Amino acid sequence: MKLPKSVKIKEVGPRDGLQNEKQTIPTEDKITWIDSLSKTGLSYIEVSSFVHPKWIPQLADASEVLGKIQREQGVTYAALVPNLRGLERALVANVDEVSIFMSASEAHNKNNINKSIEETYPILSEVVKEAKAAGKTVRGYLSTVIGCPYEGPVAASQVRKVSDRLFSMGIDELSLGDTIGVGVPNQVEKLLEELLPHFDANKLAMHFHDTRGTALANIVKSLEMGITIFDSSLGGLGGCPYAKGASGNVATEDLLYMLHGMGIETGIDIDTVMESAKLIEKVRGKKLNSRQMDILNAEEGAVCNG
Amino acid sequence: MKLPKSVKIKEVGPRDGLQNEKQTIPTEDKITWIDSLSKTGLSYIEVSSFVHPKWIPQLADASEVLGKIQREQGVTYAALVPNLRGLERALVANVDEVSIFMSASEAHNKNNINKSIEETYPILSEVVKEAKAAGKTVRGYLSTVIGCPYEGPVAASQVRKVSDRLFSMGIDELSLGDTIGVGVPNQVEKLLEELLPHFDANKLAMHFHDTRGTALANIVKSLEMGITIFDSSLGGLGGCPYAKGASGNVATEDLLYMLHGMGIETGIDIDTVMESAKLIEKVRGKKLNSRQMDILNAEEGAVCNG
Repeated sequence: MKLPKSVKIKEVGPRDGLQNEKQTIPTEDKITWIDSLSKTGLSYIEVSSFVHPKWIPQLADASEVLGKIQREQGVTYAALVPNLRGLERALVANVDEVSIFMSASEAHNKNNINKSIEETYPILSEVVKEAKAAGKTVRGYLSTVIGCPYEGPVAASQVRKVSDRLFSMGIDELSLGDTIGVGVPNQVEKLLEELLPHFDANKLAMHFHDTRGTALANIVKSLEMGITIFDSSLGGLGGCPYAKGASGNVATEDLLYMLHGMGIETGIDIDTVMESAKLIEKVRGKKLNSRQMDILNAEEGAVCNG
Repeated sequence: MKLPKSVKIKEVGPRDGLQNEKQTIPTEDKITWIDSLSKTGLSYIEVSSFVHPKWIPQLADASEVLGKIQREQGVTYAALVPNLRGLERALVANVDEVSIFMSASEAHNKNNINKSIEETYPILSEVVKEAKAAGKTVRGYLSTVIGCPYEGPVAASQVRKVSDRLFSMGIDELSLGDTIGVGVPNQVEKLLEELLPHFDANKLAMHFHDTRGTALANIVKSLEMGITIFDSSLGGLGGCPYAKGASGNVATEDLLYMLHGMGIETGIDIDTVMESAKLIEKVRGKKLNSRQMDILNAEEGAVCNG
């Protein structure tokens, strides 16, 4: 099978993970955790979000976290920004990269941003323009690229249309999110077959949620199609707050196990990642949802003959 | 991607699942559960094992279970058999198909069967001969086809060698087990590239454990290479008894979700499967380990905007 030599993993746990936790993690614990992430070999950490605290109180301390973490050289510290007001705060906090976001499906965009897709473009366009003027790179997030909780399946052509508008604004990279984790590999293939003739493979990232267990299978198909950037979160943080049992982002440590097993380099040390996962698991006070954590939490030295 | 139109799923939960549970499920509950499995559309259920009860006390009631289940037409009811004594009991219980087993790695075979690989062949050969004489089909299980807990990586050439001996005995099908769940897709590809020039794709089944989350990704690669038979167990039953947290077989319901999503037919109704999973979860008294069960156990009607 045709595989890339190396892959870039973007850790979204501190943002996409923690924004979906019911409890708010104390600021000091976030900082300690992010500092531990900075020592794993990760080159990208999405630290927080400048969405109004009314909507995401869990990340109300974005400025303080960005101000107090110990930044390592070679690591990009990013944050989500919904509008110019958010961008202003993010720039004051000296974020390295700005992430903007919207959905491919009308109903999810409306529900999440309270605007139609058409109404969203000019707002994001302004953010991109101002962020660029401030010398920042901009990442786009596009949600519901395979399925929408309100509309069902989302057409690949619709994803291409919105992606086109986002790239036209000047974003540097686009992360395509299977937000509700419904996708299977041949749907991923179909989506990428629609997008890859139009956009550079190295400007596309895949963002899978493992809600139905298909995230790693989807990542393998993406790899085979030339994608080399993947979002993940430690311990699979980021489940849906309205469906307690449902899994969140694909777990960074499970992704690392697979990629390294396949001989693909990431520059990340899985043992250090596991230490960092144990740290946030302890703060969180409940078990993380990843296979590697299950194994770590199981009796040591056990051998199975089953 | 090249995919088969339909796939056959072989449910191994009542055997591979329950043999690895610490607790012994009451015989009546097993029967009720297997009867519910018979109504899902599954065409193959591995009901129990005739390994000596000293080794697997959880399945000491194999004869009673096979005698009392309500057999549905079109469903094959199979059981594991280690030797002629086990075969005798299995034939009295009127099993439809007999499964023999051994490992591809010397150390795992020794540890599991207490015999070298060479010493194992004549014992299995006798079982196959007698089972055939009694008009039964025979399935072979080959464990540790990718990794061994004692020896590490297992060479594909070694798997081919042992497979060759098993097919020479006259087995009808061979199930290749990644017993400790260490495999990743390009290893699966390498293994099948070694085997497929020598053996019929429709006589090979893949048996993945999801210990490290890679089972579905491995199944997709197997599908792409022409494999159409997969073992799985409801709720991912079958974890390692010596490592409590570690996952077992790939969960039937997660496999079904993916296959059906990919447009591949199985003849199995996932809703009926979920009812059957809830049944054994209740008997078992602790949560099953599958994404579909997580979702089912989560709050109903929840919608995620994350």
